[in-house]
Amino acid sequence: MPYEYETDGAAIYAQSFATIRAEAALDRFDPDEEQVAVRMIHAAGMVELAPHIRFSPSFVATARAALEAGAPILCDARMVSEGVTRPRLPADNEVICTLQDPRVPDLATQIGNTRSAAALELWRPRLQGALVAIGNAPTALFHLLNMLEDPDCPRPAAIIGCPVGFVGAAESKAALWEAQPVPCCVVDGRLGGSAITVAAINAIASRKE
Amino acid sequence: MPYEYETDGAAIYAQSFATIRAEAALDRFDPDEEQVAVRMIHAAGMVELAPHIRFSPSFVATARAALEAGAPILCDARMVSEGVTRPRLPADNEVICTLQDPRVPDLATQIGNTRSAAALELWRPRLQGALVAIGNAPTALFHLLNMLEDPDCPRPAAIIGCPVGFVGAAESKAALWEAQPVPCCVVDGRLGGSAITVAAINAIASRKE
Repeated sequence: MPYEYETDGAAIYAQSFATIRAEAALDRFDPDEEQVAVRMIHAAGMVELAPHIRFSPSFVATARAALEAGAPILCDARMVSEGVTRPRLPADNEVICTLQDPRVPDLATQIGNTRSAAALELWRPRLQGALVAIGNAPTALFHLLNMLEDPDCPRPAAIIGCPVGFVGAAESKAALWEAQPVPCCVVDGRLGGSAITVAAINAIASRKE
Repeated sequence: MPYEYETDGAAIYAQSFATIRAEAALDRFDPDEEQVAVRMIHAAGMVELAPHIRFSPSFVATARAALEAGAPILCDARMVSEGVTRPRLPADNEVICTLQDPRVPDLATQIGNTRSAAALELWRPRLQGALVAIGNAPTALFHLLNMLEDPDCPRPAAIIGCPVGFVGAAESKAALWEAQPVPCCVVDGRLGGSAITVAAINAIASRKE
């Protein structure tokens, strides 16, 4: 006797988002933020994520305008860059992860940091106006904040700051939220990760549900 | 004034795992399971994941032996296949995701299911003795269970069943746990996802922490 289950992708999405909207505390979000938050919650499988999501007032509009203008998306991990749904991107935007670049191990030694942090040094030529998505490494987010302390460093348009884990994740996101060098979205505390980050990118890229 | 933070990757791992072992309820796991569970919790950023993780008694040993014997790892999503840390693999194992295969859209129409489910039809030549890792789509896990209802279908060595979400995730994992066609690991309920799944693979692949 075969297992019976919903096999229609569109119906699965619709039912998932309806469940999230019925269960999650979304009142404090404006309509654009709400769409992004719903997709982040969907990726996490947790309506309990809602109170941890924070947006700068102009974040969604700024990030979306950047993508519509053709900005690249700079990602700290391949699990982020590989998750972005290319057909949702408004300008066939480049999705870039420099972590596997052969220069990274030497750069890491040189700057005395992780490879995840060192990889951001290779973002500099593309950083101006980009959408930055950090969904894995707290050291990458901290290093970005230090890069942006230099007024001569190019400025991204917006930052998704969602590193995950037990060492530096909460601290780096709190530092981003406090500094707000550009409009940003964070998931506070230990929660975060590549799936939640990808979901935010995919929701910013297109309002389609 | 630059931000100060831990920049040594090995120290970050050690401190993260120590925090998890201090906070998470891990007593019910044997030593091999405990290592896998710790890495899954690390990826999720949630010690609250612990009570949701279930292992068949022989799961870790069976899955590890399969990898040591050169078994491929069959993944339902590129966020899973891209996350596997290749140097941890004991036999330079192939990591396969068929979701982007050009035959998949037609196959999905033909079998009346999602692309995630249809992609598994292309696993058949590699399925015997493989380690299966489903970290995204409930429809993929349900379709696998239906494939395995056929006694002529090749048998994987072990299954990591961790799809995430609000429609079919809890149900498909409960069905896997009930049927146990081969040794398996599941995260029950809505939680799961590619990061947790990748963490399980990486922990099975090598005991190195």
